[in-house]
Amino acid sequence: MARLVIRNVSVLVVPEVGECRVDEFQDLHIHDDRITAVAPTGADPEVGLEEAGDSRETGSLGDGGGGGGSLGEGGGSGGGLGEVEVIDGTGLLAVPGLVNSHTHSPMVMMRGAAEDVSIDDWFNQRIWPMEVNLTPQRVRVGARLACAEMLLAGVTTFVDHYFHADQIAQAALESGIRADLAPTYFSSTGPEAIDAAIATTRDLSTLDPRITASLGPHATYTVTDQDLRRTAEVARAEGLRIHLHAAETEEQTRSSVERLGVTPMQVLDRTGVLEAGALIAHGCGIRESDLAILERQADRIAVASCPKVYLKLAMGSVTPIRSLQSIGVPVGVGTDGAAVHNTLDVWESLRMVALTQKQREQDAEWMTVSDTLRLATRGGATAAGLTDTIGALEPGRQADIALLDLSGPHCQPLHDPRAALVYSMRASDVVTVLVAGQVVVRDRRLTTLDLDDVIAEARDLAHTLVDLSKGGAVQHYAP
Amino acid sequence: MARLVIRNVSVLVVPEVGECRVDEFQDLHIHDDRITAVAPTGADPEVGLEEAGDSRETGSLGDGGGGGGSLGEGGGSGGGLGEVEVIDGTGLLAVPGLVNSHTHSPMVMMRGAAEDVSIDDWFNQRIWPMEVNLTPQRVRVGARLACAEMLLAGVTTFVDHYFHADQIAQAALESGIRADLAPTYFSSTGPEAIDAAIATTRDLSTLDPRITASLGPHATYTVTDQDLRRTAEVARAEGLRIHLHAAETEEQTRSSVERLGVTPMQVLDRTGVLEAGALIAHGCGIRESDLAILERQADRIAVASCPKVYLKLAMGSVTPIRSLQSIGVPVGVGTDGAAVHNTLDVWESLRMVALTQKQREQDAEWMTVSDTLRLATRGGATAAGLTDTIGALEPGRQADIALLDLSGPHCQPLHDPRAALVYSMRASDVVTVLVAGQVVVRDRRLTTLDLDDVIAEARDLAHTLVDLSKGGAVQHYAP
Repeated sequence: MARLVIRNVSVLVVPEVGECRVDEFQDLHIHDDRITAVAPTGADPEVGLEEAGDSRETGSLGDGGGGGGSLGEGGGSGGGLGEVEVIDGTGLLAVPGLVNSHTHSPMVMMRGAAEDVSIDDWFNQRIWPMEVNLTPQRVRVGARLACAEMLLAGVTTFVDHYFHADQIAQAALESGIRADLAPTYFSSTGPEAIDAAIATTRDLSTLDPRITASLGPHATYTVTDQDLRRTAEVARAEGLRIHLHAAETEEQTRSSVERLGVTPMQVLDRTGVLEAGALIAHGCGIRESDLAILERQADRIAVASCPKVYLKLAMGSVTPIRSLQSIGVPVGVGTDGAAVHNTLDVWESLRMVALTQKQREQDAEWMTVSDTLRLATRGGATAAGLTDTIGALEPGRQADIALLDLSGPHCQPLHDPRAALVYSMRASDVVTVLVAGQVVVRDRRLTTLDLDDVIAEARDLAHTLVDLSKGGAVQHYAP
Repeated sequence: MARLVIRNVSVLVVPEVGECRVDEFQDLHIHDDRITAVAPTGADPEVGLEEAGDSRETGSLGDGGGGGGSLGEGGGSGGGLGEVEVIDGTGLLAVPGLVNSHTHSPMVMMRGAAEDVSIDDWFNQRIWPMEVNLTPQRVRVGARLACAEMLLAGVTTFVDHYFHADQIAQAALESGIRADLAPTYFSSTGPEAIDAAIATTRDLSTLDPRITASLGPHATYTVTDQDLRRTAEVARAEGLRIHLHAAETEEQTRSSVERLGVTPMQVLDRTGVLEAGALIAHGCGIRESDLAILERQADRIAVASCPKVYLKLAMGSVTPIRSLQSIGVPVGVGTDGAAVHNTLDVWESLRMVALTQKQREQDAEWMTVSDTLRLATRGGATAAGLTDTIGALEPGRQADIALLDLSGPHCQPLHDPRAALVYSMRASDVVTVLVAGQVVVRDRRLTTLDLDDVIAEARDLAHTLVDLSKGGAVQHYAP
């Protein structure tokens, strides 16, 4: 059994309700893929690690004492326990690996290729015409770069929605990241394409413990009620979840009411999608009148909020998180695709959530530091369908952990490390990252992928993705 | 005469109007404190540097070819020109050093100590009670940390407003950063304190070429019309500028109209502050009816926008930049103090400007990447009173330059480096920084200050700044 201890580290505790806190001088004990104990440094968590006792350092959080997360080796102590890998956490803060609750990872290939355009032009003049260029290889290369970017930023799980999801799964497995993958489909591409996407979901859901899969209808405005009904039936019959876009803007809701007489949430309700269990991306156009519908399914749905995108595309509103929380609907934090968000940095996203929610509610005391951190960890876990599996540093959960160095001048002095996480730190402060107990980033370097190769491949192919010479588009935006 | 060449670098060109562009394979020639030429790599800009010709590398922007900004030595070429320092810019992007157009640098000492509070409580329960603890030493230590944070992030000039500005000047000089310093005063502390602040402005304005100074009345709601009039008279008589807070929120404007019958801009107009020349911090409460007043003084005023703060304190609006630009009023980008902004990262600020301006105007095509970069460079130069001196990489301007490495996975592939500057990059991508031709950051390390010492001093004193046991406050917020 592989054993690992992160020794003498500060630990961010994110309770289900109430204030987060930081416990200093802790040891994080990990067996295989799970956290087995979080205990004061040197204490015996019944795993025979007494020898850790004399290694306690005096440096406290953020004094840069550890910095590099250096690697030691601890021998088994008389119990025949074999080797225990020790990571020195002195001066570092351990946080639950962040969850990117909604993204389209391969779209990193179009990063910066659709700037300063309206949402209509973004879809119809840029992105959907570009996506006629997608091939399995290009998706794989893009997803690999996305996984690299996320892991180096302490993002240990991403909830994806895209084409060629089998390729994304392979990239995720190569990198060591955890992923929930929804193969995207439109009604316009016909029943065979939908069948194929559903089949991919089935295949991916049994591929590997780190991979889960969801059904991926694109949106209420690109998938017919009939196809949504069928999706919901498959989901219920096979125990799958659904991940889709809905009520992305108030404009979409207005248009839905005009054309169909119902809101997008009512469409999800009448087609059985909500009852089957769904992750709703964005929901900025959710109305007060939708809340009663959502409340009835609050135990099986979640909403992902990606506010940088809402501002950048001037979408007019942000996710009504206060209303959703008041009816018990879980909310996660996401980046959406990098073709609009430009990064897959969930630290940036959670900061934008805090800022835009305070602005939306005109209440500086709302969306506190603790509540924001909870959204990006426990909220993300629920958005990924992994409520009890990830999202907190607790015994029994998966060892998805990021170690941060908050000793930089932009975080100091450190009156409140929780505030630093939301408002000061940068993704570059992430030092070491574990997914399912595996060290995937050590001293700011990927252990699983050759980053230079990953970037070189993406650069070589980048021009093919943004080529508009072929004409056509994978879809037309007219919600 | 000290000579330096940044060789084979990409250069961000920020024109006065229109699109920014990136010129690849350039040499930036610097003599003493100024840029003397920007020329294709190896070309002879009439300074006898022919030997640079054979050093041109093939790596283009963002391939990480240079990365470290390594230092070479070029000998004089037969002309008796002496040593020329050569910085290898291969793979790096040179941009004008950013300007932090409004901050209170020593407030880094309170970073994270006033979270999730209303604007009233932020002033009256936290910050102004904390500021009774200010001493010259504590201000100096805080300012030193602030200068370190800014330089490492590529911020080469800051426009400050705070107490004990003489100490801030010393910290700036130690660090090598450029600064415009306004010693803060309230009317409540009496005429002697005002006299002392004005005397400090006079002293600082002749201290060093890198230091300029402005008169620093705090705000229209904390300084009487009589004192503002006197300030304007001193400014006009002595050729000084004024830097103050005004119309920070629409609520302040409403209150001003109710109590005084005039808006804060009208107060600045009737007291002569606008005519004397002023940098106005925030201006979120500037009304349409104020624009005619501002337009008349557009050649001598500027506004600094710090939108992270407006969202975080739920201030209800952001600076009306489109209106201000329509009447020719220059706008810069700032961070405000880190007690509310939590960083002094102008990259973060300029991204927030782009996002919140698109949101404010409900126009995704507005506040383009090029316009945003112009605000943070040329706009900042004007905000600092240095319109023709800094803010662009052009012959004759001061050599205030940041070299960036955009080869990281969060910026790649690099379809548009300008978009990367606004929407992808992190302050940690800044590699090398020059101020007035002096290398102040080399390979991500300060050359002027010992960062560990700077941070250790700040940590040692941090508790003294947030101590509320003494009671009292430097001022009461009731605008």
